[in-house]
Amino acid sequence: MLTYRAPIADARFLLSEVFDYRSLTQLQGWEDIDIDTAMTVIEAAAAFAKGELHPLNRSSDEIGCSIDNGVVRTPPGFIEAYRNYVADGWQSLCCDPEHGGQDFPSVIGGLIAEIVASSSMAFSMFSGLTLGAYRAVRAHGSDALKSTYLPKLATGVWTGTMCMTEPQAGTDLSLIRTRALPQPNGTYRINGTKIFISGGEHDLAENIVHLVLAKLPDAPSGSRGVSLFLVPKFLPNPDGTLGARNEVQCGSIEHKMGLRGSPTCVLNFDDAIGWLLGKPHGGLAAMFTMMNSARLEVAIQALGVAHASYENAAPYAKERLQSRSLAGNSDARLPADPIIAHPDVRRNLLTMKAFIEGARALAVWVGLEADIAERHPDPDIREASHDFVALMTPIVKAYFSDTGADICALGMQIFGGHGYIRENGMEQLLRDIRIIPLYEGTNGIQAMDLVGRKLSMRGGQLLGRFMSPVTAFLETHADDPDLIELLPPVRDALKELEQSIALVLNKGKDQPVEIGAAATELLRQFGLVAMGFVWLRIAKAAAHGQAQEENREFYSSKLITARFFIHRLLPEARFRAAAVASGSSTVMAMQVEQF
Amino acid sequence: MLTYRAPIADARFLLSEVFDYRSLTQLQGWEDIDIDTAMTVIEAAAAFAKGELHPLNRSSDEIGCSIDNGVVRTPPGFIEAYRNYVADGWQSLCCDPEHGGQDFPSVIGGLIAEIVASSSMAFSMFSGLTLGAYRAVRAHGSDALKSTYLPKLATGVWTGTMCMTEPQAGTDLSLIRTRALPQPNGTYRINGTKIFISGGEHDLAENIVHLVLAKLPDAPSGSRGVSLFLVPKFLPNPDGTLGARNEVQCGSIEHKMGLRGSPTCVLNFDDAIGWLLGKPHGGLAAMFTMMNSARLEVAIQALGVAHASYENAAPYAKERLQSRSLAGNSDARLPADPIIAHPDVRRNLLTMKAFIEGARALAVWVGLEADIAERHPDPDIREASHDFVALMTPIVKAYFSDTGADICALGMQIFGGHGYIRENGMEQLLRDIRIIPLYEGTNGIQAMDLVGRKLSMRGGQLLGRFMSPVTAFLETHADDPDLIELLPPVRDALKELEQSIALVLNKGKDQPVEIGAAATELLRQFGLVAMGFVWLRIAKAAAHGQAQEENREFYSSKLITARFFIHRLLPEARFRAAAVASGSSTVMAMQVEQF
Repeated sequence: MLTYRAPIADARFLLSEVFDYRSLTQLQGWEDIDIDTAMTVIEAAAAFAKGELHPLNRSSDEIGCSIDNGVVRTPPGFIEAYRNYVADGWQSLCCDPEHGGQDFPSVIGGLIAEIVASSSMAFSMFSGLTLGAYRAVRAHGSDALKSTYLPKLATGVWTGTMCMTEPQAGTDLSLIRTRALPQPNGTYRINGTKIFISGGEHDLAENIVHLVLAKLPDAPSGSRGVSLFLVPKFLPNPDGTLGARNEVQCGSIEHKMGLRGSPTCVLNFDDAIGWLLGKPHGGLAAMFTMMNSARLEVAIQALGVAHASYENAAPYAKERLQSRSLAGNSDARLPADPIIAHPDVRRNLLTMKAFIEGARALAVWVGLEADIAERHPDPDIREASHDFVALMTPIVKAYFSDTGADICALGMQIFGGHGYIRENGMEQLLRDIRIIPLYEGTNGIQAMDLVGRKLSMRGGQLLGRFMSPVTAFLETHADDPDLIELLPPVRDALKELEQSIALVLNKGKDQPVEIGAAATELLRQFGLVAMGFVWLRIAKAAAHGQAQEENREFYSSKLITARFFIHRLLPEARFRAAAVASGSSTVMAMQVEQF
Repeated sequence: MLTYRAPIADARFLLSEVFDYRSLTQLQGWEDIDIDTAMTVIEAAAAFAKGELHPLNRSSDEIGCSIDNGVVRTPPGFIEAYRNYVADGWQSLCCDPEHGGQDFPSVIGGLIAEIVASSSMAFSMFSGLTLGAYRAVRAHGSDALKSTYLPKLATGVWTGTMCMTEPQAGTDLSLIRTRALPQPNGTYRINGTKIFISGGEHDLAENIVHLVLAKLPDAPSGSRGVSLFLVPKFLPNPDGTLGARNEVQCGSIEHKMGLRGSPTCVLNFDDAIGWLLGKPHGGLAAMFTMMNSARLEVAIQALGVAHASYENAAPYAKERLQSRSLAGNSDARLPADPIIAHPDVRRNLLTMKAFIEGARALAVWVGLEADIAERHPDPDIREASHDFVALMTPIVKAYFSDTGADICALGMQIFGGHGYIRENGMEQLLRDIRIIPLYEGTNGIQAMDLVGRKLSMRGGQLLGRFMSPVTAFLETHADDPDLIELLPPVRDALKELEQSIALVLNKGKDQPVEIGAAATELLRQFGLVAMGFVWLRIAKAAAHGQAQEENREFYSSKLITARFFIHRLLPEARFRAAAVASGSSTVMAMQVEQF
């Protein structure tokens, strides 16, 4: 049975010492949410997650979900946990007050989402998708739809789904066959089958709000011909009570590698009544409101699951006694030394720690910018922050999920053969996290989004939103004695990243395959450099903090981990650069028949 | 449901064009096993595996094994499949004629073991451990034990196990508590509990031969005090029939992440009767006869499972239609292009192919040397080959299993979300293969075996067995026009490997933690360089083969894949070298409490 410990000290350090959370409290509506208020809420969330969610995680995997005649049951305990989650206001934390929300900044919501995912990734699916649906309806719904649905979604009385995939249409949404037929009363009739719908049917809430991609009769071909519809499981009456059952049924649930506490549904829409969200044929843009939020959310899930792995691997390494230390400092009273004495076990733990703490810093940075993009009074600053978030979204989604899965494998490795045994829980984390590189756009798609779209968007303006603050920091601190050893490798890695980007974009102008052949490795290189940079910022803050009396061990652990990341893990960026530089011919030379 | 296609053409190419299988046919007993005979047998094994084992693999995972009152049942179909496997002579293939074996070289056995593991890794556990037990009894048993057990193990009438791990003793076998009490009649009474015993109890064979590590009453402390015992489930009568049940019982079977068709048993020895194998207190050396064989076997398993992933990912990528090609060569009659048109999908497939075919080449090389070590008339040549196998064993075990797991993740990735669904079978391959980095010594232990023991053994003599042929090849082909583009990166990587080794061994003389802190990355660097070298040899053979009329596509695919490996994957070696060079301080600076 796994234990759980939330990263409270790290959250406070990141918000108040590495980044400038206080700047948010100057924005309208957030004046009262100071750092202490925010930390109080984070600590309460951690207590809830540890007390109510974490105990369900193992059994939710063992028992899973079930379906009987279209009725889906979630694992034992989920109904009560969800009821309490909603009642305690966690679902509504970042929603608008007018819908019953508490209007917290999303950076705080992100730190709490990590904690929820660490405790039970399966449970976190419901809350994450419901928040995504809330945001999509808020951005694209008519006033009537907003007033009916937003209060219910904000408070989690109803949950949300994202219905995109069909058997023949995954990445390529132009291929969807679900149809929407306009009705004289302004509604639509939806017909079609959607697959891989997380939370498509369940017993946690009285109603489910499906956001469904479908084609209108006059749809142009291609992905421009897709529209978004809101299709509730039960049709709301004008007074807000639930009316008739809509014609959407769950045909089956998938048997999956992991995430077994979350029902993945086949949904059949059979003349279901729906309402258009956004413009006709503008469904993809509307859905991307939800999708971008979801991509950041699943990146944070990956971080949370990796954190859960570390929080169990580290205590195990301190307790498990095997073999003698090479350092000659054994405790002769014990039959063997704790395996944390062995350098290779430490290397695994530090690899985990360096990823988790660096990724958390990156997530906080992106979260702060997302909040600024939402609410800063200056439109130029809003745009700059929006650009930054758009740029970083595919990077964190792909880098966190690929690396997070590797981290969970390392956590298992520290348990030795015991890591492979279900009862010990470590293997569940690896099975659960393995969906993240696949869903919300595979990581290959994230790489194309970054390299094929965002790097060159508006003449490189998005890229500049990353490069400018990084370059400024490197220049300011070029001779900073605190960073004397750590800064040069990051500066070199940044230069090499700029070279890789220039090379690929230049070649890609005439030959788009060059983009495709380089995309994954270039995203990876970018992720590593971004991590190197946040580790510099962490190191700077930690060096400053070390001068204080308190928490010296905390600060010194940050400096040691920064050094580990920059000297042992960042060199991977150069390997990726070599792969990028090798060009598309290494990839495209083979004929299809030769595979 | 997965498909399966055995690597027949590749096996023939490796044996006859890349390496010199014919040299084995000059050794006593193998005169008649020419390449055509060997290939006939490999093809027959592939037909058996495809027809009888592969159809069981999915259901063996779904249904798993069961235990009822100490009786373990294997998944449906395993009894019949095992009966046919034994009857068709696959178990006895590499055993001695005097025990009913067919005396095939182990390199051929290895190629067949890969095929069996590709079809059903769970099934391959039984045959692999039985062969290992056969070899251990043959090497260390008394004449009486040999005559009783070897014919039964060789023909698979009885199966074998390796009983080492106890709850408190995994890596550190000095901690075992199982006791062996000498009896006046020369037997021993064994008492203790062993865990993680693959095939410790099952319904495939009439008897099970446990090889058990235990301590004698006068055992010195530490791992030097461990002895090896043969403990049968049923005690054989003098006439070879089965006698009384011995006091060894299966207490439970583990619930595991994967490999669910193979029962992983807790075995309780309660005054069980056993016989000493080898010398008192010499159990570890005796067990390592079995262990080294097992480490090569599980490396080959990893290759086989990765191959199974590729063989399904490649056809899926040719069939699955999503999005349009970036190359502008779309087939307008189709709604979208096959995803193999997309560079990133190709990159994934080539990464898989480059690992699988390179690893197979490395496995064949090691297999050939193992056969030479066994049977060459010249003791110096035997020693040289034995050294080479000893050096390469930890490298192939760790490199194949770590990379094999990554490869299975790539295979899932090509399936998109469908890769996560159990019915499609791709996720099972990842769950199954994930045990390999953990068992037969974790990969961290392999790294210590390589760097802490074998690299410096006998003044570097083992290392020379790799370096000499590699350096000779590089010198001979320095100006070979066939390798003009491929050779320099491998030569550079070899130089850097030599530098890494010198650095670590030098620092490690005084500070053993330097060995531990560098071991995993140095093993990885070594594995990559070894792969780079075999890809050079493959490229040379393919360049030669391309001059022929036939199979031009086969040879050109080898050249393209060689180029892919050397330009896109080999650069990882330099990243690992940087980590090695960073030294132990990056790893050891943290205090235990800071984790």
